Amino acid sequence: MARRSMTFRASEFEGRADRLQRQMAECDLAAILLTTPADIFYVTGFLTRFWESPTRPWFVVVPRAGDPVAVIPSIGADLMGQTWIDDIRTWDSPDPDDDGVTLLADTLAELTGPGAAIGLPSGPETHVRMPRADLFRLEDAIAPRRLVDATAAVQRVREIKSAAEIDKIRAACDVAGRAFDRVPHFVHAGMPIGDVFGAFQIALLEAGAGWVGYIAGAAGQGGYGNVISAAATGPLVPGDVLMLDTGVVRDGYYCDFDRNFAVGPASADAGRAHHALWRATEEALTGIRPGMRACDMHAMLARSITRHGAEPAGGRLGHGVGVALTEWPSFTARDETVLREGMVLAIEPGAVVAPGRILVHEENVVLRADGCELLSPRAPAELPELSA
Amino acid sequence: MARRSMTFRASEFEGRADRLQRQMAECDLAAILLTTPADIFYVTGFLTRFWESPTRPWFVVVPRAGDPVAVIPSIGADLMGQTWIDDIRTWDSPDPDDDGVTLLADTLAELTGPGAAIGLPSGPETHVRMPRADLFRLEDAIAPRRLVDATAAVQRVREIKSAAEIDKIRAACDVAGRAFDRVPHFVHAGMPIGDVFGAFQIALLEAGAGWVGYIAGAAGQGGYGNVISAAATGPLVPGDVLMLDTGVVRDGYYCDFDRNFAVGPASADAGRAHHALWRATEEALTGIRPGMRACDMHAMLARSITRHGAEPAGGRLGHGVGVALTEWPSFTARDETVLREGMVLAIEPGAVVAPGRILVHEENVVLRADGCELLSPRAPAELPELSA
Repeated sequence: MARRSMTFRASEFEGRADRLQRQMAECDLAAILLTTPADIFYVTGFLTRFWESPTRPWFVVVPRAGDPVAVIPSIGADLMGQTWIDDIRTWDSPDPDDDGVTLLADTLAELTGPGAAIGLPSGPETHVRMPRADLFRLEDAIAPRRLVDATAAVQRVREIKSAAEIDKIRAACDVAGRAFDRVPHFVHAGMPIGDVFGAFQIALLEAGAGWVGYIAGAAGQGGYGNVISAAATGPLVPGDVLMLDTGVVRDGYYCDFDRNFAVGPASADAGRAHHALWRATEEALTGIRPGMRACDMHAMLARSITRHGAEPAGGRLGHGVGVALTEWPSFTARDETVLREGMVLAIEPGAVVAPGRILVHEENVVLRADGCELLSPRAPAELPELSA
Repeated sequence: MARRSMTFRASEFEGRADRLQRQMAECDLAAILLTTPADIFYVTGFLTRFWESPTRPWFVVVPRAGDPVAVIPSIGADLMGQTWIDDIRTWDSPDPDDDGVTLLADTLAELTGPGAAIGLPSGPETHVRMPRADLFRLEDAIAPRRLVDATAAVQRVREIKSAAEIDKIRAACDVAGRAFDRVPHFVHAGMPIGDVFGAFQIALLEAGAGWVGYIAGAAGQGGYGNVISAAATGPLVPGDVLMLDTGVVRDGYYCDFDRNFAVGPASADAGRAHHALWRATEEALTGIRPGMRACDMHAMLARSITRHGAEPAGGRLGHGVGVALTEWPSFTARDETVLREGMVLAIEPGAVVAPGRILVHEENVVLRADGCELLSPRAPAELPELSA
């Protein structure tokens, strides 16, 4: 079959495995066990939306030396066989008696010595995508080997994007940008918000989205109550600010940025908040540098929003983007992660317009040695107006 | 705000909590802790695609008596406030020092006595969507309370759908059915499979999908290698069988069924396999009854495929559908779950056409006292032909 799902050359994945293995050497890990869609796609290129089915666990083991080994349900063998992974071990899942635990334990025993520390991402922004009871069984089966945290090892590798990865994210940003540009052509006052969602998703697919990994949006008079709504009833009315946020997926890579629109003329408050967010973003785009910490960016954005006459919204004001919609680090007051060249970041300042009413602005950038490069097309300085 | 995200009356959710509480009484659980999108949506109606961001953990506690309590990141407070849940406790996430663990432990301590067994789904088809290290911290913080498995308690409740739930799934099936009907109008030989994916997703949204929760598809000469591909390169060529599978989401509820299409005239082998699958489905639709076990349905389907001259494919031949794309039980040789009235099920027989080449057929039904009711529009008996 010439129809291969691989999105990069094998050398790209070999480089990722090498970098993980260097981290493993530093942390004295004999292997890393991966269970989540983002981690497994990152190492293998295994691209599917079948993760939407919670039924089956999937495992990839990256040994300290040599190529990764996939330990997966047999339903995935054909697709995994189209990636660069050669060593694919399968079982017939779901199996209520032994859903891959013995096969995984045997694989770990083969790849590591009895005293081994096996890394499993267990810290912030991670979870283990397998049944908790099976994880206990696995720990018993691999003893005296033990599972230790590998969050930092995985994060330090994944957070620096290669040129090929940056191209994929730029392509996703381009798709979303073209769809956002068309919004004023098909959204207007009186349109039910559910219809706006449908039409916007169609516009994203027409612009070239592989799929719409994420969509959120909200509308309200002069601002909205939250940025994570999936849909809502009721029509857009004059005076609303409409926010649409999307994570378009292209070849497994996300963008993550939003746009705001005024339905009819914007209120003075909404216009002022939007201006403050746009200016704060402008200053962040100019000021961000490798070596700064995530918390420094939070402080810079919050100060800037305040200086431009708005009140910063709570929560994080930026984050990583890549093979997941959101990745570390987080622009919060408490995240001291050092920003490095090659990180792809969402700069996402938010302002409180009134109690329970916010505005959020977002752009995607890649951090370069001397500053940043925009990946999303820059939002207009003035809030675009939809016909009322 | 009149724009509410709630998809059912509060009485629907109160009924769910009641049923969970009856299970808790039977299993002597003082509370159930839920962490995944499907479980949390089921209990609260909290509908968002923000789960796509792996950054933050979300918790809902169902106490033995009284209403559920949401313990969630503050970014979700406004949207959760639009559900029937009144007791919403938030923290500013992500917090690298304490990402909700103390707040959750305090909540559990308030709602349960010191000797309590707190149920957490830990068995087949579950995972705990929070960092493993934080789960350890939680267990320490709530001691002498302990976490025990609550898989069965949650499954026995979620697997029986209410009339309102069945209506939602039927609506999702209708959307997918209308889009499948249009496929011959926009798919033809020579079309790149990636374009087929894009056009089909647009057709699903035009037909009324809230979003396309799942899409897979594949094409190959006389059959395809797998049923989970997200996309592929290369054009459709005469002799291919194209399979498209989708889980449309409407108000948080999925359908899950596929359709096959021949590109030009079908080969004799493909036609024979399709006929066997269609006949096996027909017999399952006629023969399925409450009281049968999932493994009985597996045996019935496998026997029927064989009798009609094809070789059954490995893996499960059916499963539950609802607030997740796939739910238990699984039509495998090993799943002895008893089928009950009100279960919504995908009947999904597969056949091996040639080594590495399969055909899979799928319909959705709801199990009634005296048989089943189709929710998906029945596939045609003959493989539909796309213009070559």
